[in-house]
Amino acid sequence: MNLLILEAGDLIAPDRARVTGRRLVHAREILKAQGGSTLRAGLLDGAMGKARVLTLGEDALELELTFDEAPPAKLPLTLLLALPRPKALNRVLASASNMGVARIILLNAWKVEKAYWKSPRMEPGNLREQLILGLEQARDTVLPDLQVERLFKPFVEDRLPALLHGAEGLVADPSGVEACPRKLSGPTVLAVGPEGGWIPAELVSLRLAGLRSVHLGPRILRTETALAALIGRLG
Amino acid sequence: MNLLILEAGDLIAPDRARVTGRRLVHAREILKAQGGSTLRAGLLDGAMGKARVLTLGEDALELELTFDEAPPAKLPLTLLLALPRPKALNRVLASASNMGVARIILLNAWKVEKAYWKSPRMEPGNLREQLILGLEQARDTVLPDLQVERLFKPFVEDRLPALLHGAEGLVADPSGVEACPRKLSGPTVLAVGPEGGWIPAELVSLRLAGLRSVHLGPRILRTETALAALIGRLG
Repeated sequence: MNLLILEAGDLIAPDRARVTGRRLVHAREILKAQGGSTLRAGLLDGAMGKARVLTLGEDALELELTFDEAPPAKLPLTLLLALPRPKALNRVLASASNMGVARIILLNAWKVEKAYWKSPRMEPGNLREQLILGLEQARDTVLPDLQVERLFKPFVEDRLPALLHGAEGLVADPSGVEACPRKLSGPTVLAVGPEGGWIPAELVSLRLAGLRSVHLGPRILRTETALAALIGRLG
Repeated sequence: MNLLILEAGDLIAPDRARVTGRRLVHAREILKAQGGSTLRAGLLDGAMGKARVLTLGEDALELELTFDEAPPAKLPLTLLLALPRPKALNRVLASASNMGVARIILLNAWKVEKAYWKSPRMEPGNLREQLILGLEQARDTVLPDLQVERLFKPFVEDRLPALLHGAEGLVADPSGVEACPRKLSGPTVLAVGPEGGWIPAELVSLRLAGLRSVHLGPRILRTETALAALIGRLG
């Protein structure tokens, strides 16, 4: 945790906060916070800066806040991500948030197993927590937009074309002939498929909606690795 | 597993192999191998191609091999990596191998906890297995060189300068003023620090040895994410 993220409910005055639970334990045990010490902190979806420890008890940490910095800019990137397996989901979301993706859309695909949608990890509270963990790591306060699309066809046919107005559209596809571009030229939608890839009919639909196939070379990368490599290359 | 990797001990004739254990289970249950079906396979550190299933029993899978493809080229990249915490080590090694890093050097640093060196995950058999998992994912057969350096100072002062003959040297450093370059210009040594970063004295030593500080923007990334983002950008 490189940034302690406070939520509106933590504020006990405009410049005072009271923190409990996971963040209290982390501040005490990992950041070695003590009375008088200063932590980096920020307000969720707001400014960031310093938090001076006023009191540190067993149950709560009280802080005095001086928030005068803007969070870092997001990448103008919408990630269209076939729902990863539950084991990878948390890491993938935290990683996308860590890297500054502005919007994440979790989408169904033929090779996404139905059971993935029923995983406890899909509960909104967990999804939000993973995004916040990514922000804490990055020193950012702004939650990416997260959208869940359980049906591939209506999303891709009816709503994706509108997302592509004024944006570049790319789909990561090891069979693509064009190498992934090396820098975002503006707002971009990037589609990343499931393990095993998109099926040909899905690739056709994504291309018809306006996405170009791009590849990262002959290697097949794990979803998490591919995602970070693509964003590192585009960012 | 996108490629079944065979080792010399699996060969029962120049074009025949017998596979047991993890790879047998995976071939049967995940790849749905059956008599007559064909799998992608390769010989560790050798050629790759197709393997036809001759017999598939409870205890063993027998294959007929037609290996006529070269493995994909490696990136001319030496990764100088502060030893990650055991929880991350397996994923980081598999990911580096997955992405085609030619050489990995695990190095000590001030913020590497001593206990990390004593983790069971540091056993040579585990290290090798993680590298092979990355190759299986990538469809590559060539193990990266792996070197373990328990002492920072003698390595960086005495041996690193020789590694940098004819190579570019970079150290990922969020405080760097230069953005990470966008493409490898030739053989490159890339140093990636521990969680919490290199300490100033280590950065001085790395710079004296010939590495340039480069950054990936204002965000602090997790080791795994930073590594994939750096390699995606450089690759």
